[in-house]
Amino acid sequence: MTDSWRGYGKKTLGVALIGSGFMGTVHTRAYKALPLTFPDAVLPDVRVVADATDELAQSAARRWEIPAWTSDWHSLLDDDSIDIIDICAPPNLHREIGLAAAAAGKHVYCEKPLGVNTGETADLREAVHQHQVASFVGFNYRWAPATIFAQKLIAEGKIGAVRNFRGAFNSDWAAAADVPWAWRFARNIAGHGALGDVGSHVFDMARFLVGEISDVVGYTRQVVFERPLVGANGEITTTREVDNDDEWAALVRFEGGATGLLEGSRVATGSKTRFAFEVTGSIGSLRWDFERMNELEVYLPQQDGALDGFTRVLMGNPHPFQGVFVPQAGIGIGFLETKVLEIKAFLEGISAGEAAAPTFDDGLAVAQLLDRVVASNPTQ
Amino acid sequence: MTDSWRGYGKKTLGVALIGSGFMGTVHTRAYKALPLTFPDAVLPDVRVVADATDELAQSAARRWEIPAWTSDWHSLLDDDSIDIIDICAPPNLHREIGLAAAAAGKHVYCEKPLGVNTGETADLREAVHQHQVASFVGFNYRWAPATIFAQKLIAEGKIGAVRNFRGAFNSDWAAAADVPWAWRFARNIAGHGALGDVGSHVFDMARFLVGEISDVVGYTRQVVFERPLVGANGEITTTREVDNDDEWAALVRFEGGATGLLEGSRVATGSKTRFAFEVTGSIGSLRWDFERMNELEVYLPQQDGALDGFTRVLMGNPHPFQGVFVPQAGIGIGFLETKVLEIKAFLEGISAGEAAAPTFDDGLAVAQLLDRVVASNPTQ
Amino acid sequence: MTDSWRGYGKKTLGVALIGSGFMGTVHTRAYKALPLTFPDAVLPDVRVVADATDELAQSAARRWEIPAWTSDWHSLLDDDSIDIIDICAPPNLHREIGLAAAAAGKHVYCEKPLGVNTGETADLREAVHQHQVASFVGFNYRWAPATIFAQKLIAEGKIGAVRNFRGAFNSDWAAAADVPWAWRFARNIAGHGALGDVGSHVFDMARFLVGEISDVVGYTRQVVFERPLVGANGEITTTREVDNDDEWAALVRFEGGATGLLEGSRVATGSKTRFAFEVTGSIGSLRWDFERMNELEVYLPQQDGALDGFTRVLMGNPHPFQGVFVPQAGIGIGFLETKVLEIKAFLEGISAGEAAAPTFDDGLAVAQLLDRVVASNPTQ
Amino acid sequence: MTDSWRGYGKKTLGVALIGSGFMGTVHTRAYKALPLTFPDAVLPDVRVVADATDELAQSAARRWEIPAWTSDWHSLLDDDSIDIIDICAPPNLHREIGLAAAAAGKHVYCEKPLGVNTGETADLREAVHQHQVASFVGFNYRWAPATIFAQKLIAEGKIGAVRNFRGAFNSDWAAAADVPWAWRFARNIAGHGALGDVGSHVFDMARFLVGEISDVVGYTRQVVFERPLVGANGEITTTREVDNDDEWAALVRFEGGATGLLEGSRVATGSKTRFAFEVTGSIGSLRWDFERMNELEVYLPQQDGALDGFTRVLMGNPHPFQGVFVPQAGIGIGFLETKVLEIKAFLEGISAGEAAAPTFDDGLAVAQLLDRVVASNPTQ
Repeated sequence: MTDSWRGYGKKTLGVALIGSGFMGTVHTRAYKALPLTFPDAVLPDVRVVADATDELAQSAARRWEIPAWTSDWHSLLDDDSIDIIDICAPPNLHREIGLAAAAAGKHVYCEKPLGVNTGETADLREAVHQHQVASFVGFNYRWAPATIFAQKLIAEGKIGAVRNFRGAFNSDWAAAADVPWAWRFARNIAGHGALGDVGSHVFDMARFLVGEISDVVGYTRQVVFERPLVGANGEITTTREVDNDDEWAALVRFEGGATGLLEGSRVATGSKTRFAFEVTGSIGSLRWDFERMNELEVYLPQQDGALDGFTRVLMGNPHPFQGVFVPQAGIGIGFLETKVLEIKAFLEGISAGEAAAPTFDDGLAVAQLLDRVVASNPTQ
Repeated sequence: MTDSWRGYGKKTLGVALIGSGFMGTVHTRAYKALPLTFPDAVLPDVRVVADATDELAQSAARRWEIPAWTSDWHSLLDDDSIDIIDICAPPNLHREIGLAAAAAGKHVYCEKPLGVNTGETADLREAVHQHQVASFVGFNYRWAPATIFAQKLIAEGKIGAVRNFRGAFNSDWAAAADVPWAWRFARNIAGHGALGDVGSHVFDMARFLVGEISDVVGYTRQVVFERPLVGANGEITTTREVDNDDEWAALVRFEGGATGLLEGSRVATGSKTRFAFEVTGSIGSLRWDFERMNELEVYLPQQDGALDGFTRVLMGNPHPFQGVFVPQAGIGIGFLETKVLEIKAFLEGISAGEAAAPTFDDGLAVAQLLDRVVASNPTQ
Repeated sequence: MTDSWRGYGKKTLGVALIGSGFMGTVHTRAYKALPLTFPDAVLPDVRVVADATDELAQSAARRWEIPAWTSDWHSLLDDDSIDIIDICAPPNLHREIGLAAAAAGKHVYCEKPLGVNTGETADLREAVHQHQVASFVGFNYRWAPATIFAQKLIAEGKIGAVRNFRGAFNSDWAAAADVPWAWRFARNIAGHGALGDVGSHVFDMARFLVGEISDVVGYTRQVVFERPLVGANGEITTTREVDNDDEWAALVRFEGGATGLLEGSRVATGSKTRFAFEVTGSIGSLRWDFERMNELEVYLPQQDGALDGFTRVLMGNPHPFQGVFVPQAGIGIGFLETKVLEIKAFLEGISAGEAAAPTFDDGLAVAQLLDRVVASNPTQ
Repeated sequence: MTDSWRGYGKKTLGVALIGSGFMGTVHTRAYKALPLTFPDAVLPDVRVVADATDELAQSAARRWEIPAWTSDWHSLLDDDSIDIIDICAPPNLHREIGLAAAAAGKHVYCEKPLGVNTGETADLREAVHQHQVASFVGFNYRWAPATIFAQKLIAEGKIGAVRNFRGAFNSDWAAAADVPWAWRFARNIAGHGALGDVGSHVFDMARFLVGEISDVVGYTRQVVFERPLVGANGEITTTREVDNDDEWAALVRFEGGATGLLEGSRVATGSKTRFAFEVTGSIGSLRWDFERMNELEVYLPQQDGALDGFTRVLMGNPHPFQGVFVPQAGIGIGFLETKVLEIKAFLEGISAGEAAAPTFDDGLAVAQLLDRVVASNPTQ
């Protein structure tokens, strides 16, 4: 990129945050934590927060000590102090905001799913390419130190040629049929169900660790078909239809020749946030489980075969970034720190003039893979 | 069954063992252990051992204290003291021996795979039906106390309606490309590769725990295409082609509506005998791993949701059969004991006049499912 | 407490931070995170940071966005906007600062060890009592949600009468004899070695969960007697004596009748930050390991004895505070969040007029117990 | 030893088994399994079984296919075909039988505890020395392949100088106060309580892995003081006093300089047969838990420090004896196989003219250490 790239070479980048819900909170916590842990990094200057109403926006600005607020996100586009539009609004607003932001020459940071459907996602990707701005998707699980370390081991050939990838993201927040209806259960708002919600992370991780996927066959399945609707008074008097998937699985083949089994669920009774992968190579293998995110299990042959086995490696100073947060292996970091590292990478990419992955290209690639799962559905 | 059923009501059944290799040893150890652990059970009387040569047969008879031996297994068919033909011979002999045994009115106990291909397996199943003898397949993993207990919990509805079955049998005995060629790598001797060897166990477990499978889509894959051939002098001067699969996976749907992901490998670097399943139900879930066969992980909702989680249950006196082998939970049993329980079930079934599962019907059902994996191969 | 108590009823309390090293960073991160996670809590207003030199103090103020700085901590005592002196200075300064702070009517928050020896610690405790200010020790492991939950289960009698407490804090940061000499290896600076460093946490946890300890017998041991001394130029030309313990263990009896085994080490090869406890009661038991701080293993009898076992409970919304940080069980928090909860408790106590534990009373009780370990040393 | 040693150079040794209770069953199963797994080993010829009554002895002989039986164990002493007296009788008979057996020139194999008290144990040890016969104690946990492998790694210096040994044997079979009274609760029959029952194994393991113990301080404690007495009719109308310990712990120092923490309990709610050790060395460390007896966790530094961690090694062909029982790592063996290996070692020692450990010397050393735990009781 050239000097015409917004923010090129700057050490501080102006940010406008759109959306003050849970993900807005998380982003804000990460923005605040970044200078405290990486004082020499490219840093954010969160200048304004936007939300649907004055009340919401003002409240967030006050609570989060953000100097300005607005209920009209369009007003952010003309503000030259803003380099980045950070979209934490609901998915059905992503396209509109993202297209406007890109057109205004702002870099765009967006939580997944990018669009409600792949058409919207393609529009977003097209826009950032057309206007030559950086784009970034909140696939935060990539940013656990153990995950980054796993990617490094694979890229360095430590486990040999990858033979197989197993990725699963199972949770049970919707396992009970009496979990009330919410927007995630509506195709026209959320798009896919578990496939979009957790599947996007699994496919992103597969691509991050192993590479492009050439073949996909899989299924989606719905287990619960209607859910209680909580009325304005908090009472439940009726039910509402659920019209997206609760569970999915796919067999894939990577361009490099490896095979893969991917799966996910929001109705997997007993699983909480069990996002786990296993990468099997010709020489070694790796296993990780987000529920124990500070550990990576590594199998590499020992000189003495009697000592072969999976080694439980606790992230610490020898591993990517961990030592910045905590002084010693065995002291854990959590979800928040993945967001700090995510934002750090995005800001550094912008300052360096080179968009960091995962970009909207990655977001679109994942969206297309999810659609191929649905399209195949061989067992239905 | 009526009184005409061979061995009906008897407390001791005559057994002829064919094959004195590793599985023959295992069966013999189990036959000897049975009366010591279950003195009141229907017991075996192993009268004769057969093998390909006089030397092999005689050696086995001597070592195992079996009173007679033969190198002509046909001679066993006319011996009325023999109720059961136990086939531990190589797979390519199963069909011939099994058909002759059934025709002679003997009950047939056979290690898997029943036939080299599904046609042979169908012949075997046809024969035992025609001659109304009991048949039994050595799917021993069914017989771990934790597995039996899992099946019981599912059958009693404790985990609700089964939603999903995950079964994997991964090992790495053939992971290195320099593992020498052996009969298991030849389709004309062994049939399928990993699909037959470990896949048959995974499909059997799926059927045992969850029920009949209606839909299958999957793949098989070969990773290593030739292997060193060890010559008569122990030297390696050439290689020989491998022509069956190293790895497979399948998505299935059960008749009851549950979905399933099944997989297996002989080249899964780092996995030893990792035969694991996870059964997810609408109320609870179960997890088991053969590498820790004395444990079952059980998720059932607690009265206080703050106490929900998977409970590591150590098999002990409250669980099927465990207390017969060891006095207390936390004291483990091993592979051998699964064979003791397997044989016990077979003998009791014969004495009761009702063939115990898994019969050759189950063996054929599994063989047909394996073929359907190959037939689908959607990603190839 | 009465209205004369500094900060009584206030929603924001003024803080002066002394020390900008690692613990200073951690405290600052926690102060910043508190309003973002608990917007309605009593909140800190960090007004000034002090360190030994202008350069250090100014740098910290700039990096951490603290409005003022000083290299003269005495100047903080007269500032009426400051309610709390937060001591993150080296241990050998704790007594002087703490006494002055208490005398100035400031509440005192101090990292452990309070004093270099028990005499100093007693002086500190005496001072806060005399001046009727709140005191607080940084025993942060108490504040993991799983630990708080464990304490609650015990206090509610869920596991019955406590029979035994097992606590161990093993790490290996000093396991290699070539780890360079540092202040922690000097008795006149650090006081005890592993006994003070990790032992104080183990004894604090024992008292927190089970109660007062009446009897102690134990040992301390030194394994490495001299270590390389890194010169000003970074070269190692000589060694320096180590004169405090590397490892310790103790058998204790609690006033309530339970027994305990406590141990700790800085030379436990392979252990990283393995702070683990097991509390055995007459009805149930609990197990926790800081390396997996988001999990608590709970054993409580089930209605069906066949389902008895330890349940791995993942902290989530039903547990103390976890749901404030992350939306769902299985999503982890880390070390930082223990500090956020620690500070929250301290501030709330002050505002409520009731000093929250652990106070300097607890700090002194622990120091005295550590001395009793040394005094007994039965096997030496 | 010279040719005058009974059984010297023989490939088969005559055995008389005294006691047909649970341990008698276990020994018999092991005697039967030995030739099937180690056909070329020195083998047992179990010629006769003795028990208190004709009925018991005859029944055992019939069930176990032992050719002769007797209710008068004295009659065995004159039978020259018997080389070994195997004592599975209750502890209070050990001394009398053992002394007579030694005096008759028989080798003596005895379950632990050898004597009801240390005086009896000393008598037994004295007798086998005086009559120059081999002695052997049933400390079977030594014989798990993972344990043997651990001992080998330590002896070869792989983990460097041993710094610390942690051994615990916790179970909860007596945790509930309503567990009925039985002989194990009576000091005059069983001797020590948990200290003798499980403590002897912990001290044996400590000596086996690390060496002689020079210093001991510890405690024993009783938690339940009376238990229901089950009358002849199966009803409970009264209680009976318990007068031995439920729980114990000790701090020790080994002659080689290492420290140790040992503990055990029969009232540790939730622990089943949790016999676990951890050996920490200057270079590496080992962890084992009998509940997962086919695994050893090994920490040895890797070339790349980022790969350091505990490796879960599954016992298999590279490890002691495992490959004889099962064909591949990940396939487990159980309790029974420890007894097979125990007996194998004893028989081989006799044939070789060199008594294998653990002998009665080891049994006495352990008994004396247990007494020292009681004698110290510092916290009482």
